[in-house]
Parts: sequence; C-alpha cells; structure tokens
Amino acid sequence: MNIKITGTGSYIPANIEKNEEFFNNEFLNSDGSTINAPNEVIVKKFKAITGIEERRYAKKHLNTSDIASFAAEKAIEDAKINREDLDYIIVAHNYGDIRHDSIQSDTVPSIASRVKHLLRIKNPKCVAYDILFGCPGWVEATIQANAFIKSGIAKKCLVIGAETLSRMIDPHDRDSMIYSDGAGAVVLESTNDEGGIITHNTATYAFDEAHFIYFGETYKQETNEDRRYIKMYGRKIYEFALTNVPLAMKSALDKSGIDIKDVKKILIHQANEKMDEAIVKRFYELYNLEMPEGIMPMSIGKLGNSSVATIPTLYNMILKGALENQEINKGDVIIFASVGAGMNINAIVYKQ
Amino acid sequence: MNIKITGTGSYIPANIEKNEEFFNNEFLNSDGSTINAPNEVIVKKFKAITGIEERRYAKKHLNTSDIASFAAEKAIEDAKINREDLDYIIVAHNYGDIRHDSIQSDTVPSIASRVKHLLRIKNPKCVAYDILFGCPGWVEATIQANAFIKSGIAKKCLVIGAETLSRMIDPHDRDSMIYSDGAGAVVLESTNDEGGIITHNTATYAFDEAHFIYFGETYKQETNEDRRYIKMYGRKIYEFALTNVPLAMKSALDKSGIDIKDVKKILIHQANEKMDEAIVKRFYELYNLEMPEGIMPMSIGKLGNSSVATIPTLYNMILKGALENQEINKGDVIIFASVGAGMNINAIVYKQ
Repeated sequence: MNIKITGTGSYIPANIEKNEEFFNNEFLNSDGSTINAPNEVIVKKFKAITGIEERRYAKKHLNTSDIASFAAEKAIEDAKINREDLDYIIVAHNYGDIRHDSIQSDTVPSIASRVKHLLRIKNPKCVAYDILFGCPGWVEATIQANAFIKSGIAKKCLVIGAETLSRMIDPHDRDSMIYSDGAGAVVLESTNDEGGIITHNTATYAFDEAHFIYFGETYKQETNEDRRYIKMYGRKIYEFALTNVPLAMKSALDKSGIDIKDVKKILIHQANEKMDEAIVKRFYELYNLEMPEGIMPMSIGKLGNSSVATIPTLYNMILKGALENQEINKGDVIIFASVGAGMNINAIVYKQ
Repeated sequence: MNIKITGTGSYIPANIEKNEEFFNNEFLNSDGSTINAPNEVIVKKFKAITGIEERRYAKKHLNTSDIASFAAEKAIEDAKINREDLDYIIVAHNYGDIRHDSIQSDTVPSIASRVKHLLRIKNPKCVAYDILFGCPGWVEATIQANAFIKSGIAKKCLVIGAETLSRMIDPHDRDSMIYSDGAGAVVLESTNDEGGIITHNTATYAFDEAHFIYFGETYKQETNEDRRYIKMYGRKIYEFALTNVPLAMKSALDKSGIDIKDVKKILIHQANEKMDEAIVKRFYELYNLEMPEGIMPMSIGKLGNSSVATIPTLYNMILKGALENQEINKGDVIIFASVGAGMNINAIVYKQ
C-alpha cells in the first residue's frame, strides 16, 4: 500500500495588494521610533529581500473557512472521488475565521466542521478537525493523515491549509507586507500506485524559540488600542531556519534512501525569497553539491506568505501548469519543507 | 503491543464561582427580552437541570497554556517518564490563550508549543501541536496519539485538554453558568502490559448541526459592543446528543467484543447532568438493560463544564481517590465518551 495525493486544488483570493499600496503606511521600528527612510525605499528594500511584489487578500465577505472550502471543492473534483467517502477533513490554520471587521478569532465550531458543512458532506464517519502548527501546519496535517491511513483508521483524507493573515497585521510593522491570504487542499489516499509519501520528519523547537513568532502590540506606541497582531523576530527566525531546516530536510531524505541527485523539486514554504535560497543552498552544501537551477519553484513574488496555504497552492499551481518553466512529472521525487511558528519544521519526501 | 495511559494529572483552578455569584446578573432571553423570573429561581432551575452548584475560574494571571502545563507536570510525574522521551505533546482546546483583560484568542505559537516551552523540554523530536475539535477534543487527541503509536511514529505521547471558557461567556446568557476552566492530562505509551485502548469511534455531524454551538453576540441588544461569545442551542444539542451518543458508544463497545455487563465505568463529558443521565440510560436500553447505579461518575456539580478538560480531570480524580465512592481498578473496562461543538461525538473503550 502506498499513500498518494490524488487531487489538488487552491484558491487564490481576488484582491491584489501591490507593494505600492503600502506607500502611505506609517512604518515604525519595534520600539516605536521613526524609520529614517521614505516608504518607497523601505518597500524597495523589502522587495529585494523577500521577493514579494504583491500579495492576495480575501474579499471582505469571505473568511478562512470559505476559502478553505473553495480549495477543497477543487481538490475533490480533481481526485474524482465521492466526497461522502472521505474519512477525514483536516484543516491547518492559525487564527480561525476572523471577520474583516472583527479582531476576534472564531474557532468554534472548528474550521474543518465549517468546511464539511459548506461541502454538504453528510457522512458522520468523516471526522473533521483542525490542527494548529504554525506555517508548517499543512505539511503536518498531511503527515497525520498518512499516519491515520497507515494505522488503518482511514483510507481517504482531505487535507487543507487556509489562512487570512491580512486580518492579523499591524499597519505600522514592515513585516506586515509579507503576509497574504490563501487556501490549498489535497486529497490523500491509500493506493496501489507506485510512489507517494516515502519519509517525513518533524521537529518542534520550543526551548528558546517558542516565541520567535508571537502575538504582540502595534509598533505605534501612543495608541490605546487593546489589540494584538502577528509579530516576529525576523533576524532570529532567519538564523534559526538556516541552521535547522537543511538538517531536517537531509534527515528525511537520508531516511528515504534516495540519492539527492534524484530530487527533482523542493517545494519550500515561501516566507522570504533570500531565506529560502539560503536554506536550499545550504541543504545542497550538506551533500557537497551546488543548488541546481530551477529546483526551488517560487510563488512568493505574486502571492506573498499565505502561511499553511503556501505549499499546497504552489504544488497545485505546478501540477496545473500555472507556474512558468516548472513541472512535476510521474515518478519525480520532490521534497515539501516548511518552517514557522512553534518554532516548527517539517519535511516530506514524496514520489509523484 | 498495547497502548495505555501510564500517568494522569489535572489542574483545578483556585477560584470557586458559586451559583450565588450569578444572582446579580441581568439574564435575558436570546431575543433580548426580559426573563419573567427572579434570578434566584433562574439559578435554582439551572441547578436542577445541569447539576451544577459551582464552577472553577482560572486566576487572572493564568492562561490556558499555563494551566495545561500544570496538569502536564503532574501527568509526567505520575507516569515516571523522562519528559525528554516524549514523541508528541497534543493539546486540545477551543479558544487558545485568552488573557483575562482581552477579547482576542492568542493561538500563535500553538498552545502545545507554549506547554513544551513551560515544561522546559529541549528534544526537538517531540512534536507539539494543537487540535480543535470542540469539547470532545481530548478524547480525539487520545485517538490520534493511539494512531501515531500504532503507525510507528511515536511511543510516548502527552495528551492534554485545557480551556478557560470563563473568558468567553456572555453575562446575559443563562448558559454561561455552565462553563468552567480547567486542565487535564495523560501520558499514553506503548506497553507490553495488558489492556489499554481497545476500540474507538468518532463522528462529525456538520450537515445540519455544525452551528449548534457557535460564536454569537450578547443577548443584551442595546450594547454597541463588537464582541462575540460562546453560544449554544441547548434544546437542539440535547436532542442531538440523546439520539447519537448512545449509538456511538454502542458502536465502539460492540467492535470491542466486550459484554456490556463487563463495563465498570462510563466517563462521559460533563455538560448537563440530566442530559448525561438520559444518554447513559438510553445506552443501556439499547442492550435492554437498566443503567447500573454508580456507573457514571459525576464531577459537574463542583466543576461545571470545563470542555476538553472534563474527562481527563474526572479520570485523574477517580484514580487518585478524589471522587467519593468511585474507583477504577486494574482490569476494569471503562468507556470515555464525549459530545460537543462540531458537532462531534467520540468514544473510547479502555481497559485499565
């Protein structure tokens, strides 16, 4: 028995927010002090480091569970399964449904229950739950679905990553330009086909690192606002990721017995282009190799960091021919790898 | 190989809120209209139905992750394991950390990452994640840990249920008297000992039922408050639970091959005493039997409904001799059963 992705889908929100949209923001340092540069320069520098030109925001009337269900519909259609045969619906997210005009996260019922409701699935044996695991949540949900199938309690799982980070951002924080909204979904099934999930690896670093990504106040100190936002220590995360992600990827690959030269693509979480390049470069250095050209498909330029949605969306785009000069073909070995709040890292070695 | 609970712990918050504390609340109907009864009568009626005399609220400086870590410390000590040997920390909750003076849920990093941090666990191979599954979250997390051990990716798991529902309640809603704060934890291990998890069963009813428990506005209509609270359609839940929970328990028990007469205890989620009695009574009726006396230990009178924390706390109390006239001995067959937001139902048949 192999465990394979048999269908993919994604939802890319309609509202395009270009970098220029931030030209009128009052960006501040974390201590509230003024940044001695015009916004045009701040934004240009931001673009040079992260690679982000624009990002997507969900329309006001849509919440995380809505866009999750859109991606799920496509994945179910693509897999050509009867939705009533699903054993699990797992939704990875971080903040639940946040209405555009609210600061509260709505997490009861779970987003997975809402998605199941929206998909009009009746079968009560289809178990719907949410996982919170930072940006690596979708990869981890896939690892969990794999374990359920292996342990004999499931055959078909719908695994979704969906997030509306645009509703958690501090307009005075430059990092806010990173975040984006989106949803990606796959159907994972036990099959007699060759390939599928070969090995995986997960790590949680919480001793010193738990609060590298956190819920913090606005950088605009004089406000009396009782509201918190997604915040991060970018430099610490960069160093952490560069040290630990290549090793986690290597550990998964070495366990698989597959030669690194047979790896065709690395689909890495898109949070910062320069960081991703440094991670994959270092991964190849662990094998005394140079990073092959085109090995790391990028979507960050147009889509920003949509957290849990990023990897399934990127994977779906490549399979559907929506990413220029990128393809994945039957038999190709690929690596999914992610890093994010927790701090969590994971990797899956997968054969198409 | 069997999979058994080798350690238990719970944290019962220090602040006791007696029913009398609600005598000055302005209770309203869901349409905002006045209830034609003095609060003493409302509270007395509430007590007669739910069995709740008092409930526990966490002290202001403590959040869900704090009380989760207190329960976890005790479970680890009880299991006599090295905490660095844990493969998973799974925390079931519903709203994340909600500071006493905030209306925002803080879910990044995950509560499990915070718990791992507070427990000072270094080992990065110990994967920490949260599950959202309504009140049945702790039972479901235990089912997931069981699957991870079965599938070969874990040997020892720490499974926690923790919640501070006192921070999500509408003071104008009578149902608010139900909710309580608390944390319960177990260590689940693969072992050569006899017993452990025998069978389990889970169902998600989301077609018509997804929003039976929801995030709603206060019943005090004239307020301009932009805040939502935990809300429920009590009558619908009662009927739903009475129809479906006995069948889910029966399905798990029948799969186990164990005679109902060998069941020593049923540890059912404590949301409403009358409802729990009706459920267990109907469960026995499915076997043409009368409900045996003392089969269903109750903690609701003193602890209210602490959601995911209820069952592990009750189980821990019985094992530690803290519940009068109740005991569980080696070899006893027990059933854990829960129902809650989703709507989710689950049951585990377990041999002590």
